[in-house]
Amino acid sequence: MGKSKSQKTRPAAEKLPSGLFDPGLDYPNFSFEVTHNDGSGARLGRLTTPHGAIETPNFIFCGTKASIKNLSPAQMKEAKTDIILANTYHLMIQPGAELVQKMGGLHKFMNWNGPMLTDSGGFQVFSMGHGTCADEIKGRVATPNKKNSLLEISEAGARFRSYLDGRELKLNPEISMDLQRKLGADLIVQMDECPPYHVSREYTAQSTEMSARWGDRSLAAFEKSHDGTQALYGVVQGGVYEDLRVESAQIIADRPFFGTAIGGCLGGSEEEMYGILDWCRPHNHPDRPIHFLGIGRIKDVFRSVRYGIDTFDCVIPTRIARHGMALMKGHPNERINLLNAQYREDPEPLDASMDIPASTEYSKAYLHHLLKAGEMLAMQIISQHNVAVMNRLMREVRAAIKDGTLDSLEKEWLPS
Amino acid sequence: MGKSKSQKTRPAAEKLPSGLFDPGLDYPNFSFEVTHNDGSGARLGRLTTPHGAIETPNFIFCGTKASIKNLSPAQMKEAKTDIILANTYHLMIQPGAELVQKMGGLHKFMNWNGPMLTDSGGFQVFSMGHGTCADEIKGRVATPNKKNSLLEISEAGARFRSYLDGRELKLNPEISMDLQRKLGADLIVQMDECPPYHVSREYTAQSTEMSARWGDRSLAAFEKSHDGTQALYGVVQGGVYEDLRVESAQIIADRPFFGTAIGGCLGGSEEEMYGILDWCRPHNHPDRPIHFLGIGRIKDVFRSVRYGIDTFDCVIPTRIARHGMALMKGHPNERINLLNAQYREDPEPLDASMDIPASTEYSKAYLHHLLKAGEMLAMQIISQHNVAVMNRLMREVRAAIKDGTLDSLEKEWLPS
Repeated sequence: MGKSKSQKTRPAAEKLPSGLFDPGLDYPNFSFEVTHNDGSGARLGRLTTPHGAIETPNFIFCGTKASIKNLSPAQMKEAKTDIILANTYHLMIQPGAELVQKMGGLHKFMNWNGPMLTDSGGFQVFSMGHGTCADEIKGRVATPNKKNSLLEISEAGARFRSYLDGRELKLNPEISMDLQRKLGADLIVQMDECPPYHVSREYTAQSTEMSARWGDRSLAAFEKSHDGTQALYGVVQGGVYEDLRVESAQIIADRPFFGTAIGGCLGGSEEEMYGILDWCRPHNHPDRPIHFLGIGRIKDVFRSVRYGIDTFDCVIPTRIARHGMALMKGHPNERINLLNAQYREDPEPLDASMDIPASTEYSKAYLHHLLKAGEMLAMQIISQHNVAVMNRLMREVRAAIKDGTLDSLEKEWLPS
Repeated sequence: MGKSKSQKTRPAAEKLPSGLFDPGLDYPNFSFEVTHNDGSGARLGRLTTPHGAIETPNFIFCGTKASIKNLSPAQMKEAKTDIILANTYHLMIQPGAELVQKMGGLHKFMNWNGPMLTDSGGFQVFSMGHGTCADEIKGRVATPNKKNSLLEISEAGARFRSYLDGRELKLNPEISMDLQRKLGADLIVQMDECPPYHVSREYTAQSTEMSARWGDRSLAAFEKSHDGTQALYGVVQGGVYEDLRVESAQIIADRPFFGTAIGGCLGGSEEEMYGILDWCRPHNHPDRPIHFLGIGRIKDVFRSVRYGIDTFDCVIPTRIARHGMALMKGHPNERINLLNAQYREDPEPLDASMDIPASTEYSKAYLHHLLKAGEMLAMQIISQHNVAVMNRLMREVRAAIKDGTLDSLEKEWLPS
């Protein structure tokens, strides 16, 4: 496990300058406690940050540009949200991390006083170069005509063009740490390269090693300004190759990161994705929270928690809402499309068993009408419903892990 | 005053079939009580409907397609909104009045349990033919290349094309009453023609007479299915011609309408607009609520209440919010444009003296960022702020009318 250093970690580790960071780096204002392990591999935990504690497994909602799309912090709280994230890549371009810092940091800027995470910015930089973010995670071939704004990837870092004004920007581990310091989220993430799915094993191996070195540079940069307000996650890469994943997981466990994130290309099929989690599991540090980057369908949640995943993030709940899709407990497809003609005269609310007005006080017919009419209120209502459904899912998943009833809960949520 | 019939009303009245409606038509579940008159012509009142009572003067917010843009009913209530409206024209096209009726009527459909008004649908039909709504009210020359979807206006009614699918639709006084019955708002409005500004006196005179006859047909149609759940407003037309306005006001006062609406082209200048209110005032029925159609800048409110106006409606508060403009008490222009660079680093909230989070919990810098980033949350926050500002304005106007301090309140809101 994480504490027993495998020889396999040495080759990458030996490439590092010695003394780059303090191996005893710690996080006095943060803690993660595993409170329960069930037989299936799922676990319960409590992750404490300076902005409060969350029970795990839990879902981290994406507030990409320092805003959950269509929802205010009060509406997120009403939907019982515990934790959100913002994207460093988008914020470095606009309004700039300096401005957010000047305005008192992300919590104050966006009026969210709970736990918050930022990512490194790397994922978006590389997915612009390799394809869309969604293409990446799902292993699809990148959109062929997509304009490539990534200018260069090297050991030093990445150069790319701003999607706003075309100016050239740089991102590397030190810059990412600096940006995330200024943004001020509780949980921050090392910069890594997220290589595309359709690359050779050799490319992936080199990329994974570079990400490990970037992790160490991130730790070194982090340590220099470490004031106890933030905690750093390392990212496990290695593509779809077992030995690379194992090695990467061991390196991340070896380093004084606060948490472990599983990132990168997760394969072309669900089996490949869960194969990756399975390979990493024995090598992830057992006492650290494990975050699964960019994953968040209901069926993914049920399956991933059994591999010991503690947190997820995904744009799905709010993105599909903007296209008229409502998450639905007990529906085989997880969701319904309110634009479908079958809802035109449906007087029933989205889900009367929910405890939030978004789910209970508007008929499907009304939401269908709002969507047809292009009324943005539809997006607000459905987004809040979807967030509330995900939070309910996570509450029920936690209760089921405690009670050993995860299988029957999964059948309730996802009848076949 | 309204009760004394002028001979001037006779020519139009004589054209009517006798016995078209019961001159003693009344509204048992509705009432309007003038509770205070100040020396300046402004008055306080209490308008009671089956869905509650409102104090007047008050502002009616536009929920055009059965939705206040970007705001839920709960958010409207949080902003202390008393009354809203929806537009018959938009709803007849989509989703159709029959569907709204089937879903239990507008109140239930859109989840608003307070007083509500619908207009007749006529204004939009005619403004499509003559120019935009805004062009009309403000007396501007119509947009020259605007596609004309109005096919015909005659004594019988109007024929026009749906903006959705081009199918031909009809609207006339009987159809409008039927649609508004099905929609089920508390306060409904007769169909009238809203002639353009740049037409001859002769056209305006003929149009005004036709609107009077349409008012009588509306009363007749209304009476047939009158069940006490709705109350009907007549509309004063007459363009920019004093004698036509006076005659129209007298006819409306003569008929058993519940309320009086001042409509039509209001002239090319503010002076013309208030000249029209001044002409009508002695002839409006003194015991009925008076609604000023489509008007709602802060300075219009201050000036209009002095002519005895009880209610206003306008899309301005929510429309300008979508363009980044926030209403501001004490600002000579009534509003600020949050897209201006001066707000980029402004840590102050919109207005700390307000009592709603939308106004007090987000910095101007954050709202500037959201607008620049195209985040729809900006529209929600600024819309709710603007609604709350209008409602605060109306509360303060009512208190000032009671205390005789309207002049000093106006200087507070609109310093020169």
